[in-house]
Amino acid sequence: MTEQAAAAAESPCDGSTHRHGYIGAKDDYLKRLRRIEGQARGLQRMVDEDAYCIDILTQVAAMTKALHSVSLGLLNDHMSHCVLDAAAKDGDEGQAKIDEAMAAISRLMR
Amino acid sequence: MTEQAAAAAESPCDGSTHRHGYIGAKDDYLKRLRRIEGQARGLQRMVDEDAYCIDILTQVAAMTKALHSVSLGLLNDHMSHCVLDAAAKDGDEGQAKIDEAMAAISRLMR
Amino acid sequence: MTEQAAAAAESPCDGSTHRHGYIGAKDDYLKRLRRIEGQARGLQRMVDEDAYCIDILTQVAAMTKALHSVSLGLLNDHMSHCVLDAAAKDGDEGQAKIDEAMAAISRLMR
Amino acid sequence: MTEQAAAAAESPCDGSTHRHGYIGAKDDYLKRLRRIEGQARGLQRMVDEDAYCIDILTQVAAMTKALHSVSLGLLNDHMSHCVLDAAAKDGDEGQAKIDEAMAAISRLMR
Repeated sequence: MTEQAAAAAESPCDGSTHRHGYIGAKDDYLKRLRRIEGQARGLQRMVDEDAYCIDILTQVAAMTKALHSVSLGLLNDHMSHCVLDAAAKDGDEGQAKIDEAMAAISRLMR
Repeated sequence: MTEQAAAAAESPCDGSTHRHGYIGAKDDYLKRLRRIEGQARGLQRMVDEDAYCIDILTQVAAMTKALHSVSLGLLNDHMSHCVLDAAAKDGDEGQAKIDEAMAAISRLMR
Repeated sequence: MTEQAAAAAESPCDGSTHRHGYIGAKDDYLKRLRRIEGQARGLQRMVDEDAYCIDILTQVAAMTKALHSVSLGLLNDHMSHCVLDAAAKDGDEGQAKIDEAMAAISRLMR
Repeated sequence: MTEQAAAAAESPCDGSTHRHGYIGAKDDYLKRLRRIEGQARGLQRMVDEDAYCIDILTQVAAMTKALHSVSLGLLNDHMSHCVLDAAAKDGDEGQAKIDEAMAAISRLMR
């Protein structure tokens, strides 16, 4: 865990009035991530059983899409809570959160 | 399994001179997919422990990149074996394999 | 122009204290977009002169990358100005700007 | 123009039985690229007239999608002609074309 993350864990996002954006939907995210883990296991089974390359690629594309959807959801929750709250409180803190979010968006958009 | 896949499983790609393109690197793919499965489990742990949203997104980006790299590897193996062999044997069969590969590429490039 | 855009044009982003995020870098964006227009013309020339397919694809990839970089820049400017200002002024307005930005991010990440 | 391209231009793809894959659809590609050039000009006009950031981003996304579609089309034509013909003639030449196409696909999928 990075120092930043440690600080955030102590006082999620703005330290008092709320917790991380995704917390309200925690069970939903856990369910989706379990399904993605299952897809990763399914891919190993396909490779192990010499499945047809194209069928494996179809599953990889489905799994990539599921991950992509999780990342958009997390980003949306983060922006609607952590970023919004920081911006409401203090311009500099808001800007720092936006810079951090933009760096994450760049990584996701590759 | 699609009919096409079933046929391919009976006689991988061209039915005699070789097996699926990825077979030679099967252990490598299994290792990479196990690591990806581990990343999916790590993400669940992060969500479960209320990790910071941006740190989760960084891991999602790393996992997406690993999946992307697997898909490029599988596609390369498929083209260098199944597609190449089909094209060498018969123009129509080669064209069918290329159409199928292009459909997979479209799905991966979304 | 959408109604929303019309309203925004009348009073860019927050109507008074600033203009659109990208305005400060307008000349830079215009220069980059002119270069992208030039790349589109270069591609037409390549197709017209029967250039090699792979060389054309290399140029398409370069042009896509340039466009991608412009979109990240515009998004960053928008978030650092319009979104930040709206969030500082009013929670509901901030949320509306974030929803709008997320929709744009989804379109860009396809 | 690269050496490879120069060689290809002299004898497109396989040097005799056909020309580049996209030649049959040259007019269609030119029309699409002209429209993309027009989109690049439209973006400059929007920036110049201080259009709303999100409206500009919507146009950038549309232009990126149009470019993406051109690249899939060119790649499909290339695979169905240059790659297929090379593979039918000679295994090593086929493999070289596939390696080259995979490098282009990697660049496009970034």
